[in-house]
Amino acid sequence: MKIESVDLFYLSMPEVLDIGDGSQDALVVRVRAGGHEGWGECEASPLTSIASMVAPMSHSACKPISASVIGQTLNDLKDISRLGRLMHDNSFDLLQADHTWSGIDMALWDLMGKKLDEPVWRLLGYSSAYPKMPYASVLFGDTPQQTLQKGRTARENGFRAAKFGWGNFGKGSLQEDVDQVMAAREGIGADGILLIDAGTNFGDDADAAIQRAPVMKDCNVTWFEEPFVKDAFEQHVALAKACAPVKLAGGEGSHNPYMAKHMIDHCALGFIQIDAGRIGGISGAKQIADYAASRGVTYVNHTFTSHLALSASLQPFAGLREPRISEYPFEPKALAYDLTENHIERDANGEISAPDAPGLGMTVSKAALKQYLQDVEIKVNGQVLYRTPAVD
Amino acid sequence: MKIESVDLFYLSMPEVLDIGDGSQDALVVRVRAGGHEGWGECEASPLTSIASMVAPMSHSACKPISASVIGQTLNDLKDISRLGRLMHDNSFDLLQADHTWSGIDMALWDLMGKKLDEPVWRLLGYSSAYPKMPYASVLFGDTPQQTLQKGRTARENGFRAAKFGWGNFGKGSLQEDVDQVMAAREGIGADGILLIDAGTNFGDDADAAIQRAPVMKDCNVTWFEEPFVKDAFEQHVALAKACAPVKLAGGEGSHNPYMAKHMIDHCALGFIQIDAGRIGGISGAKQIADYAASRGVTYVNHTFTSHLALSASLQPFAGLREPRISEYPFEPKALAYDLTENHIERDANGEISAPDAPGLGMTVSKAALKQYLQDVEIKVNGQVLYRTPAVD
Repeated sequence: MKIESVDLFYLSMPEVLDIGDGSQDALVVRVRAGGHEGWGECEASPLTSIASMVAPMSHSACKPISASVIGQTLNDLKDISRLGRLMHDNSFDLLQADHTWSGIDMALWDLMGKKLDEPVWRLLGYSSAYPKMPYASVLFGDTPQQTLQKGRTARENGFRAAKFGWGNFGKGSLQEDVDQVMAAREGIGADGILLIDAGTNFGDDADAAIQRAPVMKDCNVTWFEEPFVKDAFEQHVALAKACAPVKLAGGEGSHNPYMAKHMIDHCALGFIQIDAGRIGGISGAKQIADYAASRGVTYVNHTFTSHLALSASLQPFAGLREPRISEYPFEPKALAYDLTENHIERDANGEISAPDAPGLGMTVSKAALKQYLQDVEIKVNGQVLYRTPAVD
Repeated sequence: MKIESVDLFYLSMPEVLDIGDGSQDALVVRVRAGGHEGWGECEASPLTSIASMVAPMSHSACKPISASVIGQTLNDLKDISRLGRLMHDNSFDLLQADHTWSGIDMALWDLMGKKLDEPVWRLLGYSSAYPKMPYASVLFGDTPQQTLQKGRTARENGFRAAKFGWGNFGKGSLQEDVDQVMAAREGIGADGILLIDAGTNFGDDADAAIQRAPVMKDCNVTWFEEPFVKDAFEQHVALAKACAPVKLAGGEGSHNPYMAKHMIDHCALGFIQIDAGRIGGISGAKQIADYAASRGVTYVNHTFTSHLALSASLQPFAGLREPRISEYPFEPKALAYDLTENHIERDANGEISAPDAPGLGMTVSKAALKQYLQDVEIKVNGQVLYRTPAVD
């Protein structure tokens, strides 16, 4: 079959707040081919990714993403990786390309799963989708008291694990950070799994991050996430030594599989966190699930948006028994929750699984698309290169 | 002073060909502050970079580039690095940001140079701008005969060094590549400096690239450039061993200084090639000039566009005596040549230098801006976020 159309829908909350909450807008991708439809989501600046889809060619390695997908043949799974390579060859000087492609790759897997009547995880070669323990992923409160309350709320909602991140952590004094981590521990309870996310706030300042090592150990933190920018190899290694047995986590910013492999090889990580909406989709993420397993590093999904993105992010490691923990957006904005008609709910044990249904197993809500849709028009020399497509 | 405006001008040739020639379009940046004006150029997909400048905020780390520059204070050189850090904090989840920022950073240096009446290389701490030996940078011909002729033309134009790249090199048979390299050697002459650029065509296939090692040695090639995608560390190391004494060159795709440092540390490079239009501007490039010197790796500019970009790319290593060689666009499209009223011409010795004039020392041609300007309009929900600004 031929890929007939690739439509990008930019959704947004009426107001986007200046906080580290990635569920406030979304770029949703719809691919149509041979009477089938697949959906994906890019974790990226929607308008920038739309522009990368339609931008006029600059030269042979800087073509719009559309050049590598619309009208192309999609008959079997090998075509998905073939198109990914084609996109790289056509667009490797277009920096935004990897983020845009990520949503398209997801949609191609979803479409092929629906065509073949199989869940994506089975197409990836897994025989089962093992349940994972979701952690409630929340932002630090502005005060330790708010953080404590967030932890209690997560606990009351049945979460045995919670991650606190971003906010002012790493931006203020050591004592403020200590108070925040202690409040988080108190909130989630002594037996809860506690994860702390600095959101790269230490930049490349190893000393500042190392000052936080004692409280991480004292509070029995399971991982200390994104202390630094992803490329600060040496700083990660120094901090990993100071923090042991607390492990480091990172990798969500990787926009190709190589970057995640380099972090596994050179950053002394205990956990590699992959956002399928950035690394090139399910195809790129699966490469890292395999590689992490071979290196004894635990693979975890990074997901702070919709359940469509959550399903896509669970697929690459769904069939691995070992990585038990998974990120679960706990306080998403209405847009991110409303985007799908069905949701990945916790089972009686409080665990989640990738859906046992064709493709990604999620039904995108047309009502939500209409409600949150942003009306975009891009013109060059009077020619409309992009206009928000119709939902139907 | 306050940064009053940052204007982006998208220029293009009437027709953009599907060849590896980056001089066919340009995104030119004009920054105004305190009665001064600075100019820069982004090496990127112009429309995508424009979108990244104005895209609505997605969350606290995914803001438009404009948020980190318009209205900001610019009093001294430290403000340039401060704004670069601010941009990173504000936009590290916006992948295109580094390319867009590169042109802005150049323009900020140009502006400060004009304000302080000093060339940028002096502001970078250098006391002299040493002459460099330019190599003619050309694409492989479609046939060895065409390549031979291109080499002769470069020689006849007084170039003692030439680089042949892209085209079909690495995409066809071993014999075809051997014939191309031999033709290039014949064209530039036995005593010419010959450089070969595979344009990442070997992907991550080390074996295929290693098959080309004998002809590189036989033809006394000085460097074998971009054999692989930039992140293929192990493949670079394997090829470097097979090619010695021919050295590897690479790094032009680095979109932050870390990536270039990693290539220096892990890819066994002899030459690190930096495009100031991608790595975060002159600020990022200077970091690598310093780092490369400390690691015994030779820094070379990557420039395939205008003489504005050429000046920006020469500044970061202008004051280093050692790296003698520099890329010089030999067959640029009219747009890239016309963009500046003055040009960096070869002196009596056939060498070039960063201009000894305030800022980048280049005068942008308003006539060229008008001639090649593309008319762009981006609207979201009826609001115009970007419209091509007036040239005056």
